[in-house]
Amino acid sequence: MKNSISVDWEGGLAFSTAINGHPLTIDANEEFGGNNAAPNPKSLMMMALAGCTGIDVVSILKKMKIGYEHLAIQVDADLSEEHPKVYTAMHLTYIFRGRDLDSNRLQRAIDLSLDKYCGVSAMYRQAMSISHSLKIIDTKKNGAQRP
Amino acid sequence: MKNSISVDWEGGLAFSTAINGHPLTIDANEEFGGNNAAPNPKSLMMMALAGCTGIDVVSILKKMKIGYEHLAIQVDADLSEEHPKVYTAMHLTYIFRGRDLDSNRLQRAIDLSLDKYCGVSAMYRQAMSISHSLKIIDTKKNGAQRP
Repeated sequence: MKNSISVDWEGGLAFSTAINGHPLTIDANEEFGGNNAAPNPKSLMMMALAGCTGIDVVSILKKMKIGYEHLAIQVDADLSEEHPKVYTAMHLTYIFRGRDLDSNRLQRAIDLSLDKYCGVSAMYRQAMSISHSLKIIDTKKNGAQRP
Repeated sequence: MKNSISVDWEGGLAFSTAINGHPLTIDANEEFGGNNAAPNPKSLMMMALAGCTGIDVVSILKKMKIGYEHLAIQVDADLSEEHPKVYTAMHLTYIFRGRDLDSNRLQRAIDLSLDKYCGVSAMYRQAMSISHSLKIIDTKKNGAQRP
């Protein structure tokens, strides 16, 4: 299967495209001569990974009929100092908020994504180390502390 | 150096973040249960590559004092059929529009980006093949054909 995009220079260091009809612009940060008018290209790699595994995890938990209130995913990436500047590691922190959540089942969904379904993590793992951790915020306990 | 983002589930299969203050949302395509309300995560990888090398090439040509009217970059990616679905190859087509452009110097800027500066291509090359070609549209010749 083929995926294609066409990207246009917009002056300065900005480039724009449309992905499935959705406009997307990137720009360089000011330290690299851009205007920081849009996300920088390398940062999109972090969002591609978080989005890919996030979609998997939400889909898997839906099939497992496991409810929760919120999921946030933090991506912390190590960037090398020398050119070409590459990410040498990315760490994913999956932060679930909900009541009486079963950490084993959440972990199972994460493992299924990272080991089996998420193409972005499979690709990135060829170039850097990918690690992850799980945090659970129990809203019943939190709620009990409120007046 | 560290790069970090925090990504929030927005319901359905959509996730949002802010990169350097710029909001960015992804969604799954309808075939995967999403609403196609935003770019899908894997497509961001194509934009990351085009943007990274595009910024390099524009910056290098500016230093070389080489003018041109427009630069478009086409990315054609091969996606595997089996899970995890990965890109096995990306081909970049750099399309310059301008008058009397020197293909050798344009090629030199592209090579400097892909071989030396572009971190995204250096990372992707660990996971897939990266190839490129150069097209030049001479606007003087085109212009001469107009009335």
